[in-house]
Amino acid sequence: MPLMKSWVASANDATHPFPLNNLPYGVFSTEGSHPRCGVAIGDMILDVTAAEAKGFIDLIEEPLFDLPFWNPLMEQGPAVWAALRNRLTGLLAAGSEEQEKIEPLLVAQAEAEMHMPFAVSEYTDFYAGRHHAQNVGTMFRGPENALPPNWLHIPIGYNGRASSVVVSGTEIRRPWGQLKGPNDSLPRFAPSQRFDIELEMGAIVGIPSDGPVSVQEADDMIFGYVLLNDWSARDIQAWEYQPLGPFQAKATATSISPWIVPKAALEPFRCNTPERDVELLDHLKDVGPMLYDIDLQVTMAPEGKAATTIARTNYNQMYFSAAQQLAHHTTSGCPMNTGDLLGSGTISGPTKPERGSLLELSWGGKEPLTLDSGETRSFIEDGDTLTLTGSAKGKGYIIGFGDCSGTVLPALPKPYKR
Amino acid sequence: MPLMKSWVASANDATHPFPLNNLPYGVFSTEGSHPRCGVAIGDMILDVTAAEAKGFIDLIEEPLFDLPFWNPLMEQGPAVWAALRNRLTGLLAAGSEEQEKIEPLLVAQAEAEMHMPFAVSEYTDFYAGRHHAQNVGTMFRGPENALPPNWLHIPIGYNGRASSVVVSGTEIRRPWGQLKGPNDSLPRFAPSQRFDIELEMGAIVGIPSDGPVSVQEADDMIFGYVLLNDWSARDIQAWEYQPLGPFQAKATATSISPWIVPKAALEPFRCNTPERDVELLDHLKDVGPMLYDIDLQVTMAPEGKAATTIARTNYNQMYFSAAQQLAHHTTSGCPMNTGDLLGSGTISGPTKPERGSLLELSWGGKEPLTLDSGETRSFIEDGDTLTLTGSAKGKGYIIGFGDCSGTVLPALPKPYKR
Repeated sequence: MPLMKSWVASANDATHPFPLNNLPYGVFSTEGSHPRCGVAIGDMILDVTAAEAKGFIDLIEEPLFDLPFWNPLMEQGPAVWAALRNRLTGLLAAGSEEQEKIEPLLVAQAEAEMHMPFAVSEYTDFYAGRHHAQNVGTMFRGPENALPPNWLHIPIGYNGRASSVVVSGTEIRRPWGQLKGPNDSLPRFAPSQRFDIELEMGAIVGIPSDGPVSVQEADDMIFGYVLLNDWSARDIQAWEYQPLGPFQAKATATSISPWIVPKAALEPFRCNTPERDVELLDHLKDVGPMLYDIDLQVTMAPEGKAATTIARTNYNQMYFSAAQQLAHHTTSGCPMNTGDLLGSGTISGPTKPERGSLLELSWGGKEPLTLDSGETRSFIEDGDTLTLTGSAKGKGYIIGFGDCSGTVLPALPKPYKR
Repeated sequence: MPLMKSWVASANDATHPFPLNNLPYGVFSTEGSHPRCGVAIGDMILDVTAAEAKGFIDLIEEPLFDLPFWNPLMEQGPAVWAALRNRLTGLLAAGSEEQEKIEPLLVAQAEAEMHMPFAVSEYTDFYAGRHHAQNVGTMFRGPENALPPNWLHIPIGYNGRASSVVVSGTEIRRPWGQLKGPNDSLPRFAPSQRFDIELEMGAIVGIPSDGPVSVQEADDMIFGYVLLNDWSARDIQAWEYQPLGPFQAKATATSISPWIVPKAALEPFRCNTPERDVELLDHLKDVGPMLYDIDLQVTMAPEGKAATTIARTNYNQMYFSAAQQLAHHTTSGCPMNTGDLLGSGTISGPTKPERGSLLELSWGGKEPLTLDSGETRSFIEDGDTLTLTGSAKGKGYIIGFGDCSGTVLPALPKPYKR
């Protein structure tokens, strides 16, 4: 599929993240106005809440965009998703007869503040990137025992904390926690010294389920994708995670990019999962190309300094797809709901510059990174801004996600005094 | 405090779970009517939604009981909680001048169906019962390494799945999952053969927080308590839980008792946590008697057979209180919300008949239980009904919780065919 032309001129630039082929969903506000639903087109946002109120979008009997999140659309399912996408394309395509009426409903992105695009129902984070699991396992258990015995058979995951999911731009407060170094006799309570990122993609569940679903059904339930940074306190995690997994180490915040990229916009970029070392059990088998070819990168900018690109990788490095993760998530009968967010797990490629966390990039702090400013980093320092970006490259256009960014603030001087 | 007399005669029985001293909160419906808020008094339920609509309860400007869950009250905080309790006591006490007007708002519990009493925001399950952790650790790692190194320092917990929390009486479908026995070369996908209970108490967060809170602040945030059965598939857990903790093993269902017992009703039963082997760090230290003296028991009834009591223990066996768990939960800055549910962890006492799970009672299946019917059990069989009950014993009265019960149905004949 080539670039689809829009009457919004900026959307026709071959390097713009938001061409007519994309049409991602966000929630925005402008000065003095309430948050409302919008769709990105070039440098502009179409105010979808206003477009519906004025009758230009009329999908079902009830209003779908009168609340400041996309969940009401998400729960409608693929037919209504397709109808909206079709209607938006019609309104915004070059030559649209409705251009004159729609132009007043456009807002410049430069003037908009972005909010959480959906209400997160529950948040699950997986560990399904093979190179990441291999790297972390090698550091902790040696290369022979790097992958746990179950790893090639099930997408390992844990339940995260939905209340901690925030939109890009939200400042992140360095957490306190219980820490105990290998040579300490007792733990102490202190700010995390090994605060880190995890480069991930987030899949958003549109249609709920109530019982086990197949991989194909799971894929059909997914509404769209965001970039996701699962902020992680490695020192808190090291002390707390046995035997029940990460808890407070992963509860400070998880940032997502502000625009939900519709699954439909990513379909041209479908690609295969890697070859399997061991055959998957039937209920998890691939049912076609299950991943997407999406370039990802991470930049780090110390306070007041330019950003350095510290990692480049691709979503095609995942071992298990979001649909396989979701199918596994339902095997026990676990009900899934509209607004459930599934983190892919950290995405790392096979070589060092492709690693999606500082833990891997600095090899547990043993090989600090040197930034373009000359500073070195093993983990995040106060004032650092970490930014994830991602895009799928089409012929003459790209599908972008918008930045997923956060600046780390110093820990509270003392807990309990806010 | 002695038994407080009510004009509802059944509430004055010294062995009744719902005297005027209790006044627990539930959501009920009767044939042909919508679910609404109610308070248990003796064998009856006061229709609180109707009482508010008729002007007998008037706490704040907005209605608090027009939705079928208690969250709107829960988020109001202790002053409004106390005002409601005071008003209900006035309406229902012996000699109340309003008896005649209130009597028509009573519904027999025998005619009511109970629903979830609150909307669960997120669900966290802890592992803070020492005898349970000791027993399970001994089975898996031997008695010397039974307690993980962190166990005496932090209340170990993991995020559970809020969507799987159901009210007592809901049937529980045996889950499918990936299983791999110690002698199997590969995992297989099959119904769980080691499906189990966990006897727990659930603490319900009333007031939200946004940053670390002290143990005292955490205690003030708690609205009330329920009985909680964290249904657990031990064979799924054994295969999946390394390295990120339990996931599908605990996602089939968690049952809670239908009545939220207000914290105020339990205050006379405050008791101390056990002596500490190692001093807790300041942010987790006890700030007074932190537990409650609540007798707990579990019965098991095979299909069509009488129930056998299989365990008796007490909530005073916990090592960490709900307030300590909640304070720990916020250390990282994790936001807590109205309706968050915290499972205590399995409550076991020091002797065999005090163990709160079949895993412990049958010692991993090596010592099957014999029920009164003559049947034996290592784990749950299809058709078995498991019931938790609990009560605090006052002078001349008890504070009961109502049953937390569930019957296990056979696994789906094949997954994906519902």
